[in-house]
Amino acid sequence: MTQARLMDGTAPARRIVGDAAKKAAGLAERTGTAPCLATVLVGADPASVTYVRMKQNRCREAGVESRHVALPAATTTAELVAKLEELSADASVHGILLQHPVGDRVDERAAFEAIAPEKDVDGVTFASFATMSFGLPGFVSCTPGGILRLLDEYGVDPAGKRAVVVGRSAILGKPVGMLLLARDATVTYCHSRTRDLSAAVREADIVVAAVGRPRLIRGQDIKPGAVVIDAGYNPGDVGDVDFDSAVERASLITPVPGGVGPMTIATLLEQTVDAAARQLGA
Amino acid sequence: MTQARLMDGTAPARRIVGDAAKKAAGLAERTGTAPCLATVLVGADPASVTYVRMKQNRCREAGVESRHVALPAATTTAELVAKLEELSADASVHGILLQHPVGDRVDERAAFEAIAPEKDVDGVTFASFATMSFGLPGFVSCTPGGILRLLDEYGVDPAGKRAVVVGRSAILGKPVGMLLLARDATVTYCHSRTRDLSAAVREADIVVAAVGRPRLIRGQDIKPGAVVIDAGYNPGDVGDVDFDSAVERASLITPVPGGVGPMTIATLLEQTVDAAARQLGA
Repeated sequence: MTQARLMDGTAPARRIVGDAAKKAAGLAERTGTAPCLATVLVGADPASVTYVRMKQNRCREAGVESRHVALPAATTTAELVAKLEELSADASVHGILLQHPVGDRVDERAAFEAIAPEKDVDGVTFASFATMSFGLPGFVSCTPGGILRLLDEYGVDPAGKRAVVVGRSAILGKPVGMLLLARDATVTYCHSRTRDLSAAVREADIVVAAVGRPRLIRGQDIKPGAVVIDAGYNPGDVGDVDFDSAVERASLITPVPGGVGPMTIATLLEQTVDAAARQLGA
Repeated sequence: MTQARLMDGTAPARRIVGDAAKKAAGLAERTGTAPCLATVLVGADPASVTYVRMKQNRCREAGVESRHVALPAATTTAELVAKLEELSADASVHGILLQHPVGDRVDERAAFEAIAPEKDVDGVTFASFATMSFGLPGFVSCTPGGILRLLDEYGVDPAGKRAVVVGRSAILGKPVGMLLLARDATVTYCHSRTRDLSAAVREADIVVAAVGRPRLIRGQDIKPGAVVIDAGYNPGDVGDVDFDSAVERASLITPVPGGVGPMTIATLLEQTVDAAARQLGA
């Protein structure tokens, strides 16, 4: 059996970021204002600190300013909401990213809803979820949006295909299924309560693993020739798919890292620049 | 083969409306105010006129006031939005129902979003869709909510079951799939672009037909013993399921009419009384 082709996310992400950088530079030239992303971090979870730093670095490379707001782990929901409302009202901030998870002390949903929809460049608000679900203009959640872009890059048209999404989080599983449905895939959501996960996954022309369980999906679960998107990130750079066995069955498969991850940050940057362009009326 | 048991919606709907009536009476006694539902109709489509009248009648029976707003077919989006904002701000109105479809002249989505979430007793706003999808407290779309109640009435627990939703409208297919997912079903969305609809439907332990195509789903598509919910309404009281052949394969099946329909109106009334209770602080 031939091995799957790799769906590299780094090259298309570089191109998307490059395009965003050009747009950001044009915007700065015309309006005197660079796009600005506010990053908000509660506490000091090491993984979250790393993610935020990566996003800030990518912003810098693209000529997007980032304003970092570091809040103590003891921050209350009310304090976080107040900060997000302040950033939502601040005309010098064009996009807002609340790094999640925010910890058990805080009502994450209340915090997300404090982000103005026009600055929700991470696609976490109710309004963004609904516009994604209904195929309306709006911001997409960055990982789901990045996954759809990656499919496009590799010429995979979801229309009419069976897509199986493993995982149903508000940020990843649910929205990626809705985006695939809006692109005319026949979409199945699987999760921890799914009875015969292997059988369900074997129906899929496109598998999206988005559950955060290391190597949950194995080669024998993959229909030969399927497209496999691994959006899992687990300790040790291990995805939700057992790459070594899946690569023998799939036609296309994302590596971990270097597949979905770069597309996520590229989508964030692109949406931040778009948000700035709209808010600056340019 | 034995025939399916009928899932009658009229008896449970009557009980739900009766409970809502008791609650409405208690509310009126304690606060001096009866719950009030505003019904808004654009134009004079005969089916819409009939639906609104049915809802008003059911309100009257339950001690819920209804205030009808009839707008001409030529109403613009801006005019409709202004009226809905006025009703949203009117403390004497506790729930708002915009009868849809509203016609091609009006941006239906803009109109829905003008309804205050706390008065969205028909469950049509972005916020209601998101709370349904994320399993959070909020109003449900009335037909999807009624379907879940009907499953409960007949002891059908969606957890772990394969559910197939045929149809993906914003008001019916998408939310009913999300409610089933929140109840731990493994959910597949099928639609006009699904390649082998019969094969997909045959996987289902629970089929929800919600597409508006007369007798699209036939007995041969039904896995023996499946639960069949027909949420289609087509001219001549014909559902989306071919009842005569499906009844030979299903274990439970809704009649059309008398299945999903009564549960829809009951859910609307129940949510209107709940909205009033919350707004009146009683």
